[in-house]
Amino acid sequence: MKTNILTLLLLSTCFFMGCAPKADRHGNYVIKDNVIVFDEPQRSAGQQSVLQLAVAPIPNVRIAFVGLGMRGYDAVDRVSHIDGVSIVALCDIEQDRVEAVQSKILEAKGLQRSAEYVGREAYQQLCERDDVDLVYICTDWKTHVPIAVYAMQHGKHVAVEVPAATSIEECWQLVDVAEQTQRHCMMLENCCYDFFELTALNMAQQGLFGELIHGEGAYIHNLEPYWNEYHENWRLEFNQKHAGDVYPTHGLGPLCQAFNIHRGDRMKTLVAMSTPSINGLKLAKKHMNVDTFAQGDMTTTMIETEKGKTFLIEHNVFTPRPYNRLYQLTGTYGFANKYPVEGFTLLEERLPEGLLPIDHTPINPHGFVPDTVRALLMEKYLHPIAKDIAAKAKEVGGHGGMDFIMDYRLIYCLHNGLPLDQDVYDAAEWSCLGECSAASIAQGGMPVAMPDFTRGDWNKVQGYCHAQ
Amino acid sequence: MKTNILTLLLLSTCFFMGCAPKADRHGNYVIKDNVIVFDEPQRSAGQQSVLQLAVAPIPNVRIAFVGLGMRGYDAVDRVSHIDGVSIVALCDIEQDRVEAVQSKILEAKGLQRSAEYVGREAYQQLCERDDVDLVYICTDWKTHVPIAVYAMQHGKHVAVEVPAATSIEECWQLVDVAEQTQRHCMMLENCCYDFFELTALNMAQQGLFGELIHGEGAYIHNLEPYWNEYHENWRLEFNQKHAGDVYPTHGLGPLCQAFNIHRGDRMKTLVAMSTPSINGLKLAKKHMNVDTFAQGDMTTTMIETEKGKTFLIEHNVFTPRPYNRLYQLTGTYGFANKYPVEGFTLLEERLPEGLLPIDHTPINPHGFVPDTVRALLMEKYLHPIAKDIAAKAKEVGGHGGMDFIMDYRLIYCLHNGLPLDQDVYDAAEWSCLGECSAASIAQGGMPVAMPDFTRGDWNKVQGYCHAQ
Repeated sequence: MKTNILTLLLLSTCFFMGCAPKADRHGNYVIKDNVIVFDEPQRSAGQQSVLQLAVAPIPNVRIAFVGLGMRGYDAVDRVSHIDGVSIVALCDIEQDRVEAVQSKILEAKGLQRSAEYVGREAYQQLCERDDVDLVYICTDWKTHVPIAVYAMQHGKHVAVEVPAATSIEECWQLVDVAEQTQRHCMMLENCCYDFFELTALNMAQQGLFGELIHGEGAYIHNLEPYWNEYHENWRLEFNQKHAGDVYPTHGLGPLCQAFNIHRGDRMKTLVAMSTPSINGLKLAKKHMNVDTFAQGDMTTTMIETEKGKTFLIEHNVFTPRPYNRLYQLTGTYGFANKYPVEGFTLLEERLPEGLLPIDHTPINPHGFVPDTVRALLMEKYLHPIAKDIAAKAKEVGGHGGMDFIMDYRLIYCLHNGLPLDQDVYDAAEWSCLGECSAASIAQGGMPVAMPDFTRGDWNKVQGYCHAQ
Repeated sequence: MKTNILTLLLLSTCFFMGCAPKADRHGNYVIKDNVIVFDEPQRSAGQQSVLQLAVAPIPNVRIAFVGLGMRGYDAVDRVSHIDGVSIVALCDIEQDRVEAVQSKILEAKGLQRSAEYVGREAYQQLCERDDVDLVYICTDWKTHVPIAVYAMQHGKHVAVEVPAATSIEECWQLVDVAEQTQRHCMMLENCCYDFFELTALNMAQQGLFGELIHGEGAYIHNLEPYWNEYHENWRLEFNQKHAGDVYPTHGLGPLCQAFNIHRGDRMKTLVAMSTPSINGLKLAKKHMNVDTFAQGDMTTTMIETEKGKTFLIEHNVFTPRPYNRLYQLTGTYGFANKYPVEGFTLLEERLPEGLLPIDHTPINPHGFVPDTVRALLMEKYLHPIAKDIAAKAKEVGGHGGMDFIMDYRLIYCLHNGLPLDQDVYDAAEWSCLGECSAASIAQGGMPVAMPDFTRGDWNKVQGYCHAQ
């Protein structure tokens, strides 16, 4: 009897002390050692990493577009300027949008009309075709993953607008299906191709800023005049239902490339805070006739990487402010800043020859380099991937040319059987900020252990680079 | 026997489950419910709040200066331009600094030489004089509190350079001694008196930005050329020993005034992250011959207030970047931004009459107002406290005039028996960021429950204002 009592006591003590640690569960995460830890699915049998995935060259890329509203229409237009491409199918929930692309883009350029798919589920038939290499998805956020998954499961590569996924579970779906099918899944993060970001990335990779230690990115864009433009109000509705930084990739993407995320470092810990919803709530009342709004007017997120570097990411689409993606790189020898003024700070001893100002004014390490030097830097460090197509990109346009460079690179890599510039892990890492930040905010700013979508492979590739 | 077993089981279960919650102690804080909570001392008997403290008017303010190096020398010079002031005593650890003030400032202006105190403990004799109203402290950070405490305990009011205190314990010392002695203890946060910050504060208080929801502040200043100027290397040594944002008040002070901190709101939760120390460590090797450096090259801190507003505060004195205090106010109707370019964003319908641009170009709510409008705003909303002395402030100087406005206001309030612009709670709240952020960083970004130095009185005064 005595033994029994001791055993019982020991068991109960053991259970409550830590042998069975108290995992405080909240939906799809637990709080463990004061940190939010999301559930991580296991790889299924036969599923393999797609790190550095390259497939056989596709000399002519047959593309099907799903979603022809705001971004999709422009995408077809840009892609039509690229050689070695066939636009084989078009899909939208509205017939008139399909027709607009057929007549105003394809027919106007003397190209063949494409096959048409109209309706909410019509993308499935499109994906089932056997003459499509790439499904290019520009639908609303909530349908990105279902369409991307269906496309990959039917053997297609995928390019999908930002954010690729709206939850951590959806991020894992993209990763798992890409790994199961060994298909490309590239998120269309166009800001990675902005001339300033690309040039600064090149300067960073050449060591002009020394070791990068801190980066800042944002999406600060007063959407007041645009809310009505989203079909059936989907964007406002998403903000109404979701807290956290729901649109983080324009700021985060270019930073992750510069900081070699899952190419030698990884985002490890995140904390986020958010303001009350005041202007958002007004919009909800006006457009949706509801009295709640989950999204705070401004959300601020900090991230620490495995190597101890830090990111700041901001989101505000509700208050009157100048458009701002921040885009700052802070390094031990230098600094790059895009908004509200473009500038670089450099140490004179780190300046390449021929870049001193014409009048030999000393470079001030406490200010931006003179305009003359900045202009020389922008020219000298134009990224190699942009060199041949910079002029054409500016002519075709799309946010000053960056959208065209993005499409061009996607097709270039497919033509040449190269890994794409952004892989499915990028898509998941950058998109998961929404739910990670929402969880931190819900728990009073508690740190979140960020998911490792590479499942341990983040340190296998050393350094981000564009395949050539 | 059965009862006994059950009782034992129940007790052990109860103990380990939460009836005796595990307070995980780390030095002067515990981790409780996933939050860092610092020890809070009790008020001693007879000790009373100094909120809105006013003392009898002092027609002629007799000032004693302690610390005559970098900031102190200039302070004596500025104060000598103010009427109704006597500079009665000077103290420093070095005789030549005292002599420089005597000859180059006092004698040069035809003023009487002051009493002299030289040596590390000499401030005590100075504080023991019976003809001093105010002790003005410009020593190194570590000696601020001992001198301020000694001065108050000897009946003197205190003005002390930033940061007023270097630890939470020191913050409580300032608060407790000010409450015990009912003396003023004002931190000399000069950036609150910068023309842009003052004007933006006035605009905020007049409602031009709507409800403020988010503020940003920073101290980003590459100190590379200055480290040798601090006596016996004290500033670098402090950074070498301390993680966290050790110099937060220039960014935080002006925000706290605009957001009515302890006048209707309070800073409630803080999280911080820091980069590795790379440039700092190099300095430590070069100047101190040591291989460790606690301070990360860049530190980022987020704060949430009781009312859900958010602050971002940054610190970086180690890498080449343009000087930047950020100073951003984001409101529901408008936005103010000081660095790297000064600008305001406003909604046209909120613009006061007479402020439309001369050519009636519409105001763009997605950009800064035109230069003409900004100039009109800076003129129209020049803060009332600066109106009469703006010209003189620019003439006397000190960071463009703000230092003079600060000294002028301090003396003005003492002359008139008014509450000072910054009270001891401000000094403690703004200075405590150092240790709060260090604790969050040490615990992987865990939230810190920020101390309430008013001990519950933060909501008694509604709205910050300058006494007139």
